[in-house]
Amino acid sequence: MPNTWFNGKLIDGAIPLDPFDRGLTLGDGVFETIAVFNGKPAYLAAHLDRLVHGGRVLGINVPRTFIANGTGQLLAGHGRENGILRITITRGSGVRGLAGAGAAPTALITLTPWQKGTLNAPVRLATSSIRRNEHSPLSSLKTLSYAGNILAARDAAAVGADDALLLNTSGRIASSTISNLFAIWGSTLATPSSTEGVLPGIIRARILALAKIAGLAAEERPISPAELLSADAVFLTNSLRLIRPVTSLDGKPLSSSESERLRAVFDALCEDIARETGELELANL
Amino acid sequence: MPNTWFNGKLIDGAIPLDPFDRGLTLGDGVFETIAVFNGKPAYLAAHLDRLVHGGRVLGINVPRTFIANGTGQLLAGHGRENGILRITITRGSGVRGLAGAGAAPTALITLTPWQKGTLNAPVRLATSSIRRNEHSPLSSLKTLSYAGNILAARDAAAVGADDALLLNTSGRIASSTISNLFAIWGSTLATPSSTEGVLPGIIRARILALAKIAGLAAEERPISPAELLSADAVFLTNSLRLIRPVTSLDGKPLSSSESERLRAVFDALCEDIARETGELELANL
Repeated sequence: MPNTWFNGKLIDGAIPLDPFDRGLTLGDGVFETIAVFNGKPAYLAAHLDRLVHGGRVLGINVPRTFIANGTGQLLAGHGRENGILRITITRGSGVRGLAGAGAAPTALITLTPWQKGTLNAPVRLATSSIRRNEHSPLSSLKTLSYAGNILAARDAAAVGADDALLLNTSGRIASSTISNLFAIWGSTLATPSSTEGVLPGIIRARILALAKIAGLAAEERPISPAELLSADAVFLTNSLRLIRPVTSLDGKPLSSSESERLRAVFDALCEDIARETGELELANL
Repeated sequence: MPNTWFNGKLIDGAIPLDPFDRGLTLGDGVFETIAVFNGKPAYLAAHLDRLVHGGRVLGINVPRTFIANGTGQLLAGHGRENGILRITITRGSGVRGLAGAGAAPTALITLTPWQKGTLNAPVRLATSSIRRNEHSPLSSLKTLSYAGNILAARDAAAVGADDALLLNTSGRIASSTISNLFAIWGSTLATPSSTEGVLPGIIRARILALAKIAGLAAEERPISPAELLSADAVFLTNSLRLIRPVTSLDGKPLSSSESERLRAVFDALCEDIARETGELELANL
């Protein structure tokens, strides 16, 4: 079955892209990555909402229904598989000049197989010298302009870490390159406020809503790097890996993996997802 | 004649792109735009040097000779036209994960017709709320991740300006979204230092080298926004528009257009380019 949907058509292999498409030439667009469990995308509506919002900030009119139908067409041929949907919307090809309006947006959806073992896998973090700019509207959007995150992730890999911890320009915690960050102290769970230069993650929002079920009070607030070292558990969240315990920060061990409270949060999230997609077969994920 | 060269082949119309190409999905690559006068690219070697350097920082092995040959193949069919070359190099399609190495890089070169009247056209600037991060290695690279510049350019257009003035995180002058900035006070010409969050422009470097011919002392130094208002002339430089006088900043008029010293700088630059490409027929540009 084709694994690509491009501007309304299912395709195998390469896509016929205009060489002046601003997604390719300028990183001018937005994207979403969505976990598919049992053939069903998790939190699809929330992802589409964020896609439309990001497009609006950039002045790109995201065709929500067209995209929603596209995900359905692509998934229809793949039964009850687990996988990863990636939706990419660009401004399309346009006239020269950064402020140009572009023609019709380009819409691309791909489906790739689930990567076993990525869910809940522990993470060693290394603090990056790349900062997230909490004063820029871009820091809360999932745009195609990811070079900063790529550079930070490569730097982290070079020192043997799994991901980079990104601070904002004020030196407080923002996120990792691909995940929101949470920490637990006692019976309180906290994550950096939305004004700290973080992407408003779909799983982040679910965790804040579900914390009470796991017996925790939840808060959004500024967090300093030093505070993390005193946490009972530190963990990362995103749509593809859900919850990952952070086991070390810049080589200093954290005891996140042993936290019963963190396991309770993970269980609550899995139940929440199962309501949309059916039971998660954790052994297969 | 084809206006596109893609991975070694001349092409008309769409390019067959892997839907997982990281240039499209993550803005993961570098680019150059190069003016072509009389069928010859201006400062091609310097542009290729910058492309290779940017690739090296991102960990992308830019195939310099392959690209240089590509520009020759593309231009060969177009005689002595004026035009715009755009070279785009991406990391290629790769495995999931931001730090991934990617397969072979993707190489794209396009040639578009010269846009008459863009050379030396005056510019009204509006100060942007988007800042350039002088602490990030990315601020000195021409990566495909241009969303910040796009947002700033759109904000400027929304208030009736032609381009945005970008400050760095310290509040000093960096550049515009597509150009370096210079100012003239008396017989001294200055541009923000390379550590201020600016792209090391090819024309910027030529202007610094040619200033003496125009009877000016040249310096790179930090510049505050307030200083600009006292300048005899403020101007922008880039590879496609060469030198453009700034006629107003946030609505306050500047007298750049009347500056004889600025005209002397422009004349010196045109002579420099003519040595590579033949006489510039300014009436046609």
